[in-house]
Amino acid sequence: MPKLVDHRKRRELLAQAAWRVIRRAGLDGLSVRTVAEEAGMSLGSLRHYFGSQAELLAFSMRLVSEQATRRIEGLPYTGEPRADILLIIAELLPLDEVRREEAEVWLAFAAKAVSDPAIGELYREVHEQLYAGFRRMLEGLAAVGLAKPGLRLETETKRLHALVDGLVLHHAAAPERVTSEDMLAAVTLHLDSLLERPAE
Amino acid sequence: MPKLVDHRKRRELLAQAAWRVIRRAGLDGLSVRTVAEEAGMSLGSLRHYFGSQAELLAFSMRLVSEQATRRIEGLPYTGEPRADILLIIAELLPLDEVRREEAEVWLAFAAKAVSDPAIGELYREVHEQLYAGFRRMLEGLAAVGLAKPGLRLETETKRLHALVDGLVLHHAAAPERVTSEDMLAAVTLHLDSLLERPAE
Repeated sequence: MPKLVDHRKRRELLAQAAWRVIRRAGLDGLSVRTVAEEAGMSLGSLRHYFGSQAELLAFSMRLVSEQATRRIEGLPYTGEPRADILLIIAELLPLDEVRREEAEVWLAFAAKAVSDPAIGELYREVHEQLYAGFRRMLEGLAAVGLAKPGLRLETETKRLHALVDGLVLHHAAAPERVTSEDMLAAVTLHLDSLLERPAE
Repeated sequence: MPKLVDHRKRRELLAQAAWRVIRRAGLDGLSVRTVAEEAGMSLGSLRHYFGSQAELLAFSMRLVSEQATRRIEGLPYTGEPRADILLIIAELLPLDEVRREEAEVWLAFAAKAVSDPAIGELYREVHEQLYAGFRRMLEGLAAVGLAKPGLRLETETKRLHALVDGLVLHHAAAPERVTSEDMLAAVTLHLDSLLERPAE
């Protein structure tokens, strides 16, 4: 069904145009018009793919999460839990241009979630997916007996989630103050602090 | 010098009007005009207190940090380092309406720092102050022999700073997912993990 594939592909290209607008001008700079212009498409054509600005926004936010999830599903896992968790978390950190783009779009949604209930709903959808992912990581460590005894799963999940998102925010807003190396060092230290016996 | 005092007071009232505009409409919704309207003042009068929008923005961001600093300086310290650090960090968390306002304004600046170099400079000024504050806390713990031996001061400071800012972001964007209790539980757990002997 080449036509369906094209339709999906076109929607992704438009969402990526939306990302560029968001990075340049913030969510307030985004409209179906600015995205159509950015994509070099007429407003009429865009409306063929997205019936409303809300639909475009929702697809654009979800694509950030889907793109990261696809990468995570394709990672070269080692079977060693500590190493594999570091591989996953690294995909969530803005360590290259692709992940920097995701991080900046996510941060724009997070900041706007405060005052815009519709954006808030989209933000929370991604927040919940991330929370569930971090929770699975820690449950996995506990299941194979690698986690420190007495690990408080819910608080530890929220702590790890907040640490990672805080690092993403710091690097996006002040990359020379919190570098790629800083992000990885903080996450590694954190993970080791949760393990019964940290890696030598 | 009542006149000088009035001048400062007026600038603070205008900055607080700017905060309300930022919370409602984001940094993109802020202009000298919207702030003058919010403060019930003419544009001409506002210009008496702030020569430019940039000056108003800078004062508004710095006032967030100054207001928190003033509260921190007036805290009822116990002399017990762990308890005192928790007191300080609590002043940085959005635990009431005053602190929620500070957190939301700060988050708007952080998100905008990504695409706007002038906002980025203001954001980094506050980022550096916070980093220095967290560093002093951990140095203080180490100095009195309470910190775990071998504490890596720079990485630990960046980790604590990212954790706190991540919690602030999560609570501001999704308060029912990361509650006040969650923030305090994560910070307490984190602090205890840095101590030689956590509180019983």
